[in-house]
Amino acid sequence: MRIVVVAPSCPLKPEAAEALKALVDTRGDCELSIHPQCLLSAGHFAGPDEARLAALREVMADSSVDAVWFARGGYGSNRIAEAALTDLPDAAGSKTYFGYSDAGFLHAGFHKAGLEVAWGPMPQDIVREGGEAAVTRALDWLVGRDPGALEPEIDEPAMAFNLTVLSNLLGTPLEPDFTGVELLIEDVGEHLYRIDRTMFHVAASPGIRKVRQIRLGRVNDVLPNDPDFGGDAADIVEHWCTRSGIAYGGRADIGHDTANRVVPFGRAQPKRPTRA
Amino acid sequence: MRIVVVAPSCPLKPEAAEALKALVDTRGDCELSIHPQCLLSAGHFAGPDEARLAALREVMADSSVDAVWFARGGYGSNRIAEAALTDLPDAAGSKTYFGYSDAGFLHAGFHKAGLEVAWGPMPQDIVREGGEAAVTRALDWLVGRDPGALEPEIDEPAMAFNLTVLSNLLGTPLEPDFTGVELLIEDVGEHLYRIDRTMFHVAASPGIRKVRQIRLGRVNDVLPNDPDFGGDAADIVEHWCTRSGIAYGGRADIGHDTANRVVPFGRAQPKRPTRA
Repeated sequence: MRIVVVAPSCPLKPEAAEALKALVDTRGDCELSIHPQCLLSAGHFAGPDEARLAALREVMADSSVDAVWFARGGYGSNRIAEAALTDLPDAAGSKTYFGYSDAGFLHAGFHKAGLEVAWGPMPQDIVREGGEAAVTRALDWLVGRDPGALEPEIDEPAMAFNLTVLSNLLGTPLEPDFTGVELLIEDVGEHLYRIDRTMFHVAASPGIRKVRQIRLGRVNDVLPNDPDFGGDAADIVEHWCTRSGIAYGGRADIGHDTANRVVPFGRAQPKRPTRA
Repeated sequence: MRIVVVAPSCPLKPEAAEALKALVDTRGDCELSIHPQCLLSAGHFAGPDEARLAALREVMADSSVDAVWFARGGYGSNRIAEAALTDLPDAAGSKTYFGYSDAGFLHAGFHKAGLEVAWGPMPQDIVREGGEAAVTRALDWLVGRDPGALEPEIDEPAMAFNLTVLSNLLGTPLEPDFTGVELLIEDVGEHLYRIDRTMFHVAASPGIRKVRQIRLGRVNDVLPNDPDFGGDAADIVEHWCTRSGIAYGGRADIGHDTANRVVPFGRAQPKRPTRA
């Protein structure tokens, strides 16, 4: 099992890279490489668009790579997602793409293109409090398809997105087909009035109205609303689901935190055969 | 000339209401009413959705009203915009709807429905530093169609939107036809990475790609980007226009400030005949 970490959004912290390598060494059940592009920096991003795209395309085209793990979120994968999907090499289809948060732009476009993607913890999470457990959960799923890593109530086919990322990819070439999907959403660091506005946008989308149901993960680090909004994030999501004729399925065990679980897009694929 | 102020988003400050009434008394060229709904409060909003909708529909249906002036922005007009347009009374078509910021949700849907809308300063602006000039500019245009109030380079047909509001109405039933339009955008209180993400979303929209050109108003009160984003808001907007095949026409004289100018949607209508 060979996993390569690339950073299509923001740079990976060197201490996260070191901690991850140490954890993988201890496990001994997989081989992990951290692409040097992860440590590049150019303004907001882990290197210029060209460098992030080149690293991503390099690992997509490498037939010795079983899983591409996105180093962290932040912002920026949308700037290279479409270009990453042009003239797809055969090897791109024989691996898993894994991460969450800003990586949702890639997840959407890659899933639409028929590649295997899953939502779950990322390398940078290891430097959070409790982060080793999160990264271990991700590796348990990547290496052994451990069902204990999955969001416990998952009802396939499913997808998971950061709500704000989802809103920003609707109507773009990255938008996947949501028909019949259980859609899990979560968010972090937003005001409730923004969650409400984003839910208005998302719930009005003709594509989103084709989902089977929406479940809400954690909405963490909500910024103060002045005045008090008058309701919480779950009230807001249920309100817009009801108004829009979308089934609301209650809460989900995902979020921008170390308890975040794995959500394979579509239907989970069996464990990859061991390489000869 | 009879103008009525309603608040489809957040409540109007009482001191703004008083200052506006005093200004209009001094001018003596129009009659102004501030609907009592403007001072309601329910959580984030100027009263519950039902009260804001009822006040808006009341003034839309009132044939004695020449102009409906949205009290202020904030957030919330999207929650009632579609309902405001159902079973439109005849009188709704014989008046001007005026404001900016969050009122963009109404502007979009109302313009799409054939009503006359324009972007420009709002009553709440009067309590800003320099706000009397802003509100005077709005009244000069509402009462006398003063060409000096207009965005100086305006090239009809035009529209103007807060960028974040625009992003959140794309793909919803409020989205108007942008074909051949000069689209003016501005924003306030955002991080540059968010401006970049929103421009990705907006510039990818098939509807937006039909505009004649985009011009950028002021992007005020930009929140600190950590690290430095690497470019300013104009660089970002030009970048996404270029990538998306949209003509970028440079800067525009609109913004969340008291220098904000008037932008009639579509083609400006002549001054309304004086009521008998």
